[in-house]
Amino acid sequence: MPQTIQPAVVGATGYAGFELARLLARHPLAKKPVLFTRNGESGATAKLDELYPQISGNGGYPLVPFDWQTLRAKNVDVLFLATPHEVSREWVPEAIAQGIHVIDLSGAWRLETPEYRAIYDFKDENPALADKLMAQAVYGIPELHREELKEAALVANAGCYATSIILALAPLVRAGLVDLNHGIVCDSKSGVSGAGKQPTQKTHFVEVAENLSAYSVFNHRHTGEILEQLGLLPEQLTFTPHLLPIPRGILSTIYVRMNTATPSDAIEACMKKFYAGSPWVRVFPAGKLPQIQYSLHTNYCDVGFVLAPDGKRLVIVSCLDNLVKGAAGQAVQNMNVMFGWNEEEGLR
Amino acid sequence: MPQTIQPAVVGATGYAGFELARLLARHPLAKKPVLFTRNGESGATAKLDELYPQISGNGGYPLVPFDWQTLRAKNVDVLFLATPHEVSREWVPEAIAQGIHVIDLSGAWRLETPEYRAIYDFKDENPALADKLMAQAVYGIPELHREELKEAALVANAGCYATSIILALAPLVRAGLVDLNHGIVCDSKSGVSGAGKQPTQKTHFVEVAENLSAYSVFNHRHTGEILEQLGLLPEQLTFTPHLLPIPRGILSTIYVRMNTATPSDAIEACMKKFYAGSPWVRVFPAGKLPQIQYSLHTNYCDVGFVLAPDGKRLVIVSCLDNLVKGAAGQAVQNMNVMFGWNEEEGLR
Amino acid sequence: MPQTIQPAVVGATGYAGFELARLLARHPLAKKPVLFTRNGESGATAKLDELYPQISGNGGYPLVPFDWQTLRAKNVDVLFLATPHEVSREWVPEAIAQGIHVIDLSGAWRLETPEYRAIYDFKDENPALADKLMAQAVYGIPELHREELKEAALVANAGCYATSIILALAPLVRAGLVDLNHGIVCDSKSGVSGAGKQPTQKTHFVEVAENLSAYSVFNHRHTGEILEQLGLLPEQLTFTPHLLPIPRGILSTIYVRMNTATPSDAIEACMKKFYAGSPWVRVFPAGKLPQIQYSLHTNYCDVGFVLAPDGKRLVIVSCLDNLVKGAAGQAVQNMNVMFGWNEEEGLR
Amino acid sequence: MPQTIQPAVVGATGYAGFELARLLARHPLAKKPVLFTRNGESGATAKLDELYPQISGNGGYPLVPFDWQTLRAKNVDVLFLATPHEVSREWVPEAIAQGIHVIDLSGAWRLETPEYRAIYDFKDENPALADKLMAQAVYGIPELHREELKEAALVANAGCYATSIILALAPLVRAGLVDLNHGIVCDSKSGVSGAGKQPTQKTHFVEVAENLSAYSVFNHRHTGEILEQLGLLPEQLTFTPHLLPIPRGILSTIYVRMNTATPSDAIEACMKKFYAGSPWVRVFPAGKLPQIQYSLHTNYCDVGFVLAPDGKRLVIVSCLDNLVKGAAGQAVQNMNVMFGWNEEEGLR
Repeated sequence: MPQTIQPAVVGATGYAGFELARLLARHPLAKKPVLFTRNGESGATAKLDELYPQISGNGGYPLVPFDWQTLRAKNVDVLFLATPHEVSREWVPEAIAQGIHVIDLSGAWRLETPEYRAIYDFKDENPALADKLMAQAVYGIPELHREELKEAALVANAGCYATSIILALAPLVRAGLVDLNHGIVCDSKSGVSGAGKQPTQKTHFVEVAENLSAYSVFNHRHTGEILEQLGLLPEQLTFTPHLLPIPRGILSTIYVRMNTATPSDAIEACMKKFYAGSPWVRVFPAGKLPQIQYSLHTNYCDVGFVLAPDGKRLVIVSCLDNLVKGAAGQAVQNMNVMFGWNEEEGLR
Repeated sequence: MPQTIQPAVVGATGYAGFELARLLARHPLAKKPVLFTRNGESGATAKLDELYPQISGNGGYPLVPFDWQTLRAKNVDVLFLATPHEVSREWVPEAIAQGIHVIDLSGAWRLETPEYRAIYDFKDENPALADKLMAQAVYGIPELHREELKEAALVANAGCYATSIILALAPLVRAGLVDLNHGIVCDSKSGVSGAGKQPTQKTHFVEVAENLSAYSVFNHRHTGEILEQLGLLPEQLTFTPHLLPIPRGILSTIYVRMNTATPSDAIEACMKKFYAGSPWVRVFPAGKLPQIQYSLHTNYCDVGFVLAPDGKRLVIVSCLDNLVKGAAGQAVQNMNVMFGWNEEEGLR
Repeated sequence: MPQTIQPAVVGATGYAGFELARLLARHPLAKKPVLFTRNGESGATAKLDELYPQISGNGGYPLVPFDWQTLRAKNVDVLFLATPHEVSREWVPEAIAQGIHVIDLSGAWRLETPEYRAIYDFKDENPALADKLMAQAVYGIPELHREELKEAALVANAGCYATSIILALAPLVRAGLVDLNHGIVCDSKSGVSGAGKQPTQKTHFVEVAENLSAYSVFNHRHTGEILEQLGLLPEQLTFTPHLLPIPRGILSTIYVRMNTATPSDAIEACMKKFYAGSPWVRVFPAGKLPQIQYSLHTNYCDVGFVLAPDGKRLVIVSCLDNLVKGAAGQAVQNMNVMFGWNEEEGLR
Repeated sequence: MPQTIQPAVVGATGYAGFELARLLARHPLAKKPVLFTRNGESGATAKLDELYPQISGNGGYPLVPFDWQTLRAKNVDVLFLATPHEVSREWVPEAIAQGIHVIDLSGAWRLETPEYRAIYDFKDENPALADKLMAQAVYGIPELHREELKEAALVANAGCYATSIILALAPLVRAGLVDLNHGIVCDSKSGVSGAGKQPTQKTHFVEVAENLSAYSVFNHRHTGEILEQLGLLPEQLTFTPHLLPIPRGILSTIYVRMNTATPSDAIEACMKKFYAGSPWVRVFPAGKLPQIQYSLHTNYCDVGFVLAPDGKRLVIVSCLDNLVKGAAGQAVQNMNVMFGWNEEEGLR
């Protein structure tokens, strides 16, 4: 267990990368992070606090153009990639070859099943090496993969939607309480920062404000993660994301059928037991539901539920901040587990 | 078919009542509406344009304290009640006795099934009369009850959530294409005006902004309307409303299972045929989904859908403005049908 | 006074152009507008209702690629340009030469003073012709230039900020009641649609929501319009625009010093007299202030004020919808005046 | 300089009180705060985390009914009052008599000038004692009263609007650079949490969203604070607050005239010198303006400016979070100074 490590971030100018830079900068066991910019990255500037004046006044956050030599010269222990998945797919083999731990926030290394991965259309230079790395990569939700993370060289930080859905369902599904053949409906709603910092028509204020829209129905990239992590078949999951007129936060409303009529307190007990040693999941008392506001700017995933009088139809609601537990906070939590530290370190 | 009629509104100071007052004021076949206030109504003032300065400059909208004599003196043909359901339940028998048509925007006269009605806890002075009136009342969605509306004395204007869900489902359910036993999930999201003008902690700006919350899970008053109009059993419907951080608009995401694998164009054709003569429902092409913005400030209910590759799992999305097609606009549409006029009159 | 005319719009895919297309489509004295697209215009498609599904269901709004022959073939009487100012500056001479009336919504023809115009950096092919046209152009605020508009061939529709400020100040400034040498402060706040439909970092939802920012201080393009229309010297006006986290609406808070202590009712009387024949300006009673909500989706400019106890310091607040009275609605109002029609035609 | 102290909060269920409870709970030199509720306080419950589930999961925040005996029993060193001003006015004499330090967040002890105080209409049981306490009270902006705070028993924490305006103006006004006789215009915009947690028509989501409104023109309670702290006469200040459709944050746009034409860098230098030892004010480079987003959830007050080409007209923009630097954060900062600690303690 190292006393202190040197982190680096590529892509700190994006929303998740910026959140990560801030979290790492105040992490008590991490040295000041090296913040790399890539060629062609939008919004590149000499200092991160010029792009985000909210962090000025702390001595400055210099941005350094990325190259592998600089990476070595800085003695980086762990490299966070807040980059497009194509970039992550290309850079990870080299970083791992250099013996650097990688926590990748993109979708590049999350999916084992070739059919699910097809949606990303990866073009690997060395497919055999990529397959080997993929076999070693650990899916980055500590609540599910704590032990593997302790040994991991490559962590595929989980998707924001996927985290909110997997954490809500894992206890009941793993306990075999859910009728999987009946199918699970996940109706998720996300704030706009989930769509990234690049301005598009879809993220134009006038298109989002006073509005709500569903998108990528039966076609969202996070679907494969949910299927794999919960052991579901494709036809057992219907996942519909929506774009909310708020900057951040995700709420997933999840509809399942219990195998047999189950009392409410058994469901609550099952969830609480599953998350007993997990400080970043809060299970609400039966009948009380989380709201997006409760978890904003925290690393919590909040989970609550209401059971129908028939004891079989169950509505689970989970909330998290897509930039924290859905991205940067979970990445730090993964780092904490990876280096054998307390999971809460740097996240309170 | 009368050339022109005299409408009156009770409760014009609330959000739906105000919208109604505005619509009636510019309806070409209606005389200037009489706007009544009730004793004890909040926000009572001498003129509606003092409460809503947005309508000032048109000669004024005087408010008249309600009593039955004034109602008669004004030769009112049709009385719109934008009142709490207790008030509607109490006043309707007298209005009908006086031969005045009533369009009631509350939940007082929507539900035939005693068990569903129980949630309102009505205290009728004359239960037998109430039952008789209930038997005559027509549920106010013209797309479903056009013929009965032409003969109706009492119209129970449909609930906002209920309208968005019933219009989305009616074509497929009535055509027998939906597997009802599998269950239908309705995940609805509404703007805040649906919660009324009365300030509460729930509608405080700071509680709603930057937030999303589910409420009344398995326990919402509109559930009975949906069950009755679609002919469903209680366990066949799971309905979860959410409070959106926008002033108005509803989006319902509806999950159904088809009885057999069905092609997308058959579904589109079924919907388009059902709404062929209905100017206020827009069926979107298969795969295109409506958004809340498209129907704001209009009387449209927009319906679109995406079908899973398996041809069985179907996601329907419907949108409407809760104050227009979900309340005041539909009330005017009901009036148009009731008096034999073109359904679009006064609504463009 | 023609019974009916043929309008055309270039730039209907932008926010102001779209609003204009909608207004013209339901104008009782205008034929269905021809909607032109320019080469290179973003968001070009075959039909406007594909880009803005909110208007679908009315028979369609076809978009026609612009060229001068088509313009002639369509017998266009009045051409609305909702185009960048460079385009307006280039096209207007040809349109006027063809005898077509032009109402230009850009800043191309608003400014007579060369120094104020410098901010636009026009590159005219024929500067002498441009100067001649500029001398004939009428600044498009009907409340100030009603008589000239009746004879105008070219109308320079006023800027949105400028309209809100000029209408608030014109009565008192023209009556000589304001101490101009003391200086006037205009603190204006605008919704995001004023920045146009093109997605930029500035209009990204996450940058605007939960935020407020001032911009273009001492450097905004509308400054010259205000100076010219009110007859002020540059050092007499300080104008600060701000970007509000709402889609539409402008509120200007204006600070003036009266020449002598003046009673409140004299100020109200001065304003009411000035706007006596103007249906689209609402003067509020002394001490009552307009809010943005009151004028949204209307062609009103609302004006109210509070006077300090000293009778000299005056705060005027004016509100309007930047896409209606600040752009498309005022353009229609200008058209109404131009063709001798009632100023309210097509705008209720 | 004590190693650690025992704080207590009355009114932790309100927005500012809740923020304060959270800040104190993680302050390294303060014991866990005692959270008192008053009789009749709205939203009273047994635990603060039931009212604000966002803080659940930390062991609970019990609420204790207030009485003086409990206060003594808990050995409270410093009492924070987040209470209505009437309550603060009544309780402070007793608390001070008991030798407890008080930091009052209301307007009860901010104003020395009887005329300015009249707006609060205090009803003191012992006016002479109240006057004596008022003479000892220190106005709670550390950047202006650091030395007095070190000796203070009673701190009148500054108003949110007042803080944003005073910090923006103090350097230039105290340096004698501003033409006070010309008058200063302060156009301020605040998020809704400034209006408190009590639901009212004014804070109803539907009234605030999509809106902007000015209020209390020439009549706001914070005016007296600004006058006293800057040494201005009433007619030298025009202050207009506005209600923004966001939950938190204040932006003040301030218009002053310099006594003589002054270069931009002299203004920047004056501000930077004034705040040299003040970690919680960030002076932006000349021409760069702060935005509300930059200071949200921090204790910073950000100040920037743009100077007109004439070198005399100056626009200053200041931003802060009304619940942090405008209330709870500044209260903690005052506590830090009071007890001789580093001003940043517990606020990073």
